[in-house]
Amino acid sequence: MTDFAATRARFHIPEGIVYLDGNSLGPMPLAAEARVARMLRAEWGEMLITGWNRAGWMDQPRRVGDRIARLIGAPPGSVVMGDTLSIKVWQALAAALRLNPGRKVILSDTGNFPSDLYMADGLVKLLGDGHALRTVAPEDVAGAIDESVAVLMLTEVDYRTGRLHDMAALTARAHAAGALTVWDLAHSAGAIEVDVTAAGADFAVGCTYKYLNSGPGGPAFIHVAPRHADAALPALSGWLGHEAPFAFDPDYRPGRGVERMRVGTPPVIQLAALEAALDVWDTVDMADVRARSIELSQAFIAGVEAGCPGLDLASPRDPAARGSQVSFRHPDGYAIMQALIARGVIGDFRAPDILRFGLTPLYIGAEDVARAVEVLAGVMANRAWDRPEYHRRAAVT
Amino acid sequence: MTDFAATRARFHIPEGIVYLDGNSLGPMPLAAEARVARMLRAEWGEMLITGWNRAGWMDQPRRVGDRIARLIGAPPGSVVMGDTLSIKVWQALAAALRLNPGRKVILSDTGNFPSDLYMADGLVKLLGDGHALRTVAPEDVAGAIDESVAVLMLTEVDYRTGRLHDMAALTARAHAAGALTVWDLAHSAGAIEVDVTAAGADFAVGCTYKYLNSGPGGPAFIHVAPRHADAALPALSGWLGHEAPFAFDPDYRPGRGVERMRVGTPPVIQLAALEAALDVWDTVDMADVRARSIELSQAFIAGVEAGCPGLDLASPRDPAARGSQVSFRHPDGYAIMQALIARGVIGDFRAPDILRFGLTPLYIGAEDVARAVEVLAGVMANRAWDRPEYHRRAAVT
Repeated sequence: MTDFAATRARFHIPEGIVYLDGNSLGPMPLAAEARVARMLRAEWGEMLITGWNRAGWMDQPRRVGDRIARLIGAPPGSVVMGDTLSIKVWQALAAALRLNPGRKVILSDTGNFPSDLYMADGLVKLLGDGHALRTVAPEDVAGAIDESVAVLMLTEVDYRTGRLHDMAALTARAHAAGALTVWDLAHSAGAIEVDVTAAGADFAVGCTYKYLNSGPGGPAFIHVAPRHADAALPALSGWLGHEAPFAFDPDYRPGRGVERMRVGTPPVIQLAALEAALDVWDTVDMADVRARSIELSQAFIAGVEAGCPGLDLASPRDPAARGSQVSFRHPDGYAIMQALIARGVIGDFRAPDILRFGLTPLYIGAEDVARAVEVLAGVMANRAWDRPEYHRRAAVT
Repeated sequence: MTDFAATRARFHIPEGIVYLDGNSLGPMPLAAEARVARMLRAEWGEMLITGWNRAGWMDQPRRVGDRIARLIGAPPGSVVMGDTLSIKVWQALAAALRLNPGRKVILSDTGNFPSDLYMADGLVKLLGDGHALRTVAPEDVAGAIDESVAVLMLTEVDYRTGRLHDMAALTARAHAAGALTVWDLAHSAGAIEVDVTAAGADFAVGCTYKYLNSGPGGPAFIHVAPRHADAALPALSGWLGHEAPFAFDPDYRPGRGVERMRVGTPPVIQLAALEAALDVWDTVDMADVRARSIELSQAFIAGVEAGCPGLDLASPRDPAARGSQVSFRHPDGYAIMQALIARGVIGDFRAPDILRFGLTPLYIGAEDVARAVEVLAGVMANRAWDRPEYHRRAAVT
């Protein structure tokens, strides 16, 4: 049984704050400070260039990838770290299109995170020659998978509503139609139980700064199913994906397996922070996390619906159809969220009218949920959001 | 006049080490430790998600870009940080090809850093349709620029020999033939005086972990000449390059100017370390750095040639034709470098036979050069490299 009191003690949560935005940026694991300080002084400072060998920086993207692999049901050696999620989405799409020549359509849904759609759009425009991105409503995806589709690209958990796609069923349907799949696990990894192997996913990508708590701008990950790993060609063919980077060959030869998806120099300082976060994840059973997340989410929904008239549930009511966040709609959602944040309850807002709350068992408990409900009820009862300063939009919402 | 004793005091150089590999990985600025610790505790830890606004993380890639701009002769607002150099090379090439439709050749040279060539190769293979990467010997570049060339892609300073291309002359020649230019400043930024504006460069890219001392995996930069900045299309069209990322529009609209070259979430921890490094750079005049670098390089060459028979200068003898590194050839170069490192003089080796030494005035002085020469002379005189352990190849050389 995962000890959530112990995991909670391993994070820095500011005094007086209920943090329900770990679905956007996870809080700092306390050990990140010492781990990063050691990386700076004992590794970079003292080892200098020899750190690439002596501190193991060069292999770190693979070693850390193996620790992520456990959380998403991927076998060791099938996940590698680097770049940002947008870049990894693009790499997976470009590789999948080449594995499925003769077809030119990327199918996605309108609930996908915009950057995934933008990256896909950039790719099909670059390729030209009839390549296209087709998007349908999330509920229409299954019916839209036909024999024209080269790649089905979906984010498993909707970033606004938390609505969960059925990865195994949609992947099976895609495969039956001769399409490959690229799954974005941004709101899945560390949030719900994921089994990319059982689902038969061809490619999976994700970020680490949300549920995985690696800090702002932590590196992304990419998983390539072992059956594709030595055939998938990295269109972004950087030297660290080369079979022998330090041979400095004039010609590119893709490296073995998923390591070919590496591009440039790995962000070693960010990786150190991620390692500290994974030390916490290593103590955790995802089934326990999922069960507790549902418990907290159900309590939150019940509390808000009982105490906060005017807020409409935007997330699926069935916990099995939802990730680890709960969203509500309100026309004044932005201002309400500012009023909440001013009172120490941090969630976030997504245009046009969504208030998002992440329920993250590693550092959120029943008492936090109760307090969030109480504060939200107070804000709603007194129309506390109805002040000009709460309506002023910040650059980042 | 730049105070090099003062800059030297701002770096952590391990006791007893002469560090001549800052051209590969710069040493740690002492202030990086406090800056990163503050980023972790006071920003990530305390501000959590609100750090994107309150700590200014979202604008940091542009603000930091302006500080790099000064070092490469670029106007404010024309440089933005992010990703790795390989990704930025690719973005610049893809954008340049689109700005020059009808032409399909990327011209480069065989002395270019392999990753640049690999990325270009990946791009032309993806585009197909007659696109090609053509490489010639460095000395043949000028003569190879003809009307078939869409983009001339060169690294200004050769990573092995330090040989310097004439950026202004080659850019003028490219423009006269109707080609655009992409300049890789990996071994230029912080090493020599660069003026991308005077040279008329169309795109310039570079990394920050070499001469700029941002730490392993620090983010890259990209400069787009203002005349192209609102026309260049980012093929890697990520959400942070969108005109309004937080509008979450279904369609991509490129942002203003160089900011459209942003892709995903910036690596905020690495950027904090880079900021500490730039605090040192802000006190420095590049003309002084260049003058001192030449002085140190000339002394090093003279010392090695006088005291180390068997080592052949691989760098141009004329300092005006050379960057801020000096290289020598020897058939046993790898083992010699290991013997040197074991004696506290750190340079590096590049296959097949190059010993590289970076002369970096911010933290290297005349006494370091004298000591390096003395140790190298001792190694050569006694064939001290002739031991099996110095011949065993490490993963990273």
